[in-house]
Amino acid sequence: MSLTISCSLLKQLTSDIFIRAGVPTADAAAMAEVLTVTDMRGIHSHGVVRSARYIDCIRAGGIRPDAEIAVETSGPAFLQVSAAGGLGIPAAVKSVNRLIELGRRQPLALVTVNHSDHFGAAGYYTMLCAEAGLIGFAMSNTCPLMAPTGGAKAAIGNNPFAWAAPAGRYRAALFDICMSTVACGKVEIAAAEHKTIPPGWLLDRNGVPTQDPDEYAKGGIMTPFGAHKGYGLAVMVEMLSGALAGAAMLSGVHSWNTRPGSDSGTGHCFITINPEFFGGLEAFVCRMEAMIAELLAVPAAPGGDRVRYPGEIEFERERHAAETGIALPEASLSELRRAAAMTGLEPAFQAMVGGSV
Amino acid sequence: MSLTISCSLLKQLTSDIFIRAGVPTADAAAMAEVLTVTDMRGIHSHGVVRSARYIDCIRAGGIRPDAEIAVETSGPAFLQVSAAGGLGIPAAVKSVNRLIELGRRQPLALVTVNHSDHFGAAGYYTMLCAEAGLIGFAMSNTCPLMAPTGGAKAAIGNNPFAWAAPAGRYRAALFDICMSTVACGKVEIAAAEHKTIPPGWLLDRNGVPTQDPDEYAKGGIMTPFGAHKGYGLAVMVEMLSGALAGAAMLSGVHSWNTRPGSDSGTGHCFITINPEFFGGLEAFVCRMEAMIAELLAVPAAPGGDRVRYPGEIEFERERHAAETGIALPEASLSELRRAAAMTGLEPAFQAMVGGSV
Repeated sequence: MSLTISCSLLKQLTSDIFIRAGVPTADAAAMAEVLTVTDMRGIHSHGVVRSARYIDCIRAGGIRPDAEIAVETSGPAFLQVSAAGGLGIPAAVKSVNRLIELGRRQPLALVTVNHSDHFGAAGYYTMLCAEAGLIGFAMSNTCPLMAPTGGAKAAIGNNPFAWAAPAGRYRAALFDICMSTVACGKVEIAAAEHKTIPPGWLLDRNGVPTQDPDEYAKGGIMTPFGAHKGYGLAVMVEMLSGALAGAAMLSGVHSWNTRPGSDSGTGHCFITINPEFFGGLEAFVCRMEAMIAELLAVPAAPGGDRVRYPGEIEFERERHAAETGIALPEASLSELRRAAAMTGLEPAFQAMVGGSV
Repeated sequence: MSLTISCSLLKQLTSDIFIRAGVPTADAAAMAEVLTVTDMRGIHSHGVVRSARYIDCIRAGGIRPDAEIAVETSGPAFLQVSAAGGLGIPAAVKSVNRLIELGRRQPLALVTVNHSDHFGAAGYYTMLCAEAGLIGFAMSNTCPLMAPTGGAKAAIGNNPFAWAAPAGRYRAALFDICMSTVACGKVEIAAAEHKTIPPGWLLDRNGVPTQDPDEYAKGGIMTPFGAHKGYGLAVMVEMLSGALAGAAMLSGVHSWNTRPGSDSGTGHCFITINPEFFGGLEAFVCRMEAMIAELLAVPAAPGGDRVRYPGEIEFERERHAAETGIALPEASLSELRRAAAMTGLEPAFQAMVGGSV
């Protein structure tokens, strides 16, 4: 069962919840904006379903709700930032806004973040870059979730990676993946909805393949997508978000699920490339439009849907949600209710749900 | 059948072949170095097996053997280069050497190359960066070879992407993939060796799955790995190597196989990140060593090989080849013989093969 909720009401409630949890107003607004837009784009595994878990970590002392980012090193084209044990989302939003200032004046710019936590959907940050006329990349390490190729232990994160670029009449191209065969959020949603999962998604704690999503919470191990290819891309993200950022790496990154009381040590890395230096933004956007138009004109495979450009589905959902509201799945509603209850806002939650369209 | 050939003899013959084909001495040495090292690393699909094909394109007028790269735009942290319709390998070697000069002084640096051709194995160039103490990325678009997700036409290249980074006692981490389920060179080698290929590698010209590698030359279509994930990564490479580089894109990139007489219009993009700006190279290398040590200590999956770090297998093969020679597969020997015959060097080829160890 899902309910369709107004985007502005959802954003308001989410913001109020984080303010009540001790998060400064501007940071709470960033939390609400990122989680709501992510749900609008249909990525429910990284939307408000996470709200209660962030508050669990705040309550357990693993996330400092009022932490302020600190710049450790900087130059005209780069920053190394510490999130100081705070929430990953506002730290990432502030770091990327600083990156965009650098990226407007430099052909390339890079910001790393350490002592951070779960930053939500990587693609959100790359869209901030694309909307500023820049090519953007975003990535983060995570606690160990995947078995490296040939291994029988969760030893590396599923390490999300996203890119986006301005694309004129197509808005942007946007691509956001994690390195496991599927996002673990999808396994958690299947568990909450008591559904089995397809073969190949998960190994149990002993490395044996399973279709039971409940095995994930019992120490189950995600598999890298494309075998060694997903593994090698995960190591790339670990290198940039962990080794380069001075963040924790591999087993040093703590799970916000199993250890809500520790600084997770998560690291992020964000990069921009400015097309103004490479023939100009206008010419670049024209070329992106031409590329996308050519991809959209490819004939559909027999029996399949037509070809889409990266991000097309997310943008369609976002437009639709802005017009008609967000169809929130049960797991999202349930976790948002829990967050509201923890912060004394259950009446506001009930009012929002009662007024659902 | 394979023959084991001395690395230095193979390099000498390959260089002589390209000199006889009209390639300037230094560029011929670059061709020989890149192709031989690639064979030493066991990537036979991108080694001397390609030598005769490069000469086919020179003979047909599609590659100018004596082209010199020209800088179109530049700044302290970037270059846009034209390969002027010449061989991709020497253009890429020269561009990456220029990039490394920039990358030593900048936190990030980027070089694009347009009007180029097939540049061999992407990983070679990232290793030049890693050996200079830099994190390196290399990528190239190719002629359309893959169906975008949901499509029934080869509309985008399999767009290779590689990264490498210095890793102290482990030499480096090195990762080099293409976005198709397998490299098309592997399909071509299977065709030359009259073997069938596993399901999932190839669609025939009508979009129907096939296990016959001969279908590739008849218009067969590669599939992206990991479905939409491989597709989106291919679009990323097309964006940086095509749209940003001012190179041809998608159907504008011509196949050196089917149209050896045209400028293929291929584009490349190379990026460096300098760890000196992010806490220092020494600290970065320590962290890479710690990460790799932790990955190598992961217990092996039941019945499987142990966990490897990215590049470990290639480095082992390279060391082994340096000591004992390269075991060249039949397809490589046959194409090298053809290249030697085209350039009047068949006696030198026979002498090399006769002296094989």
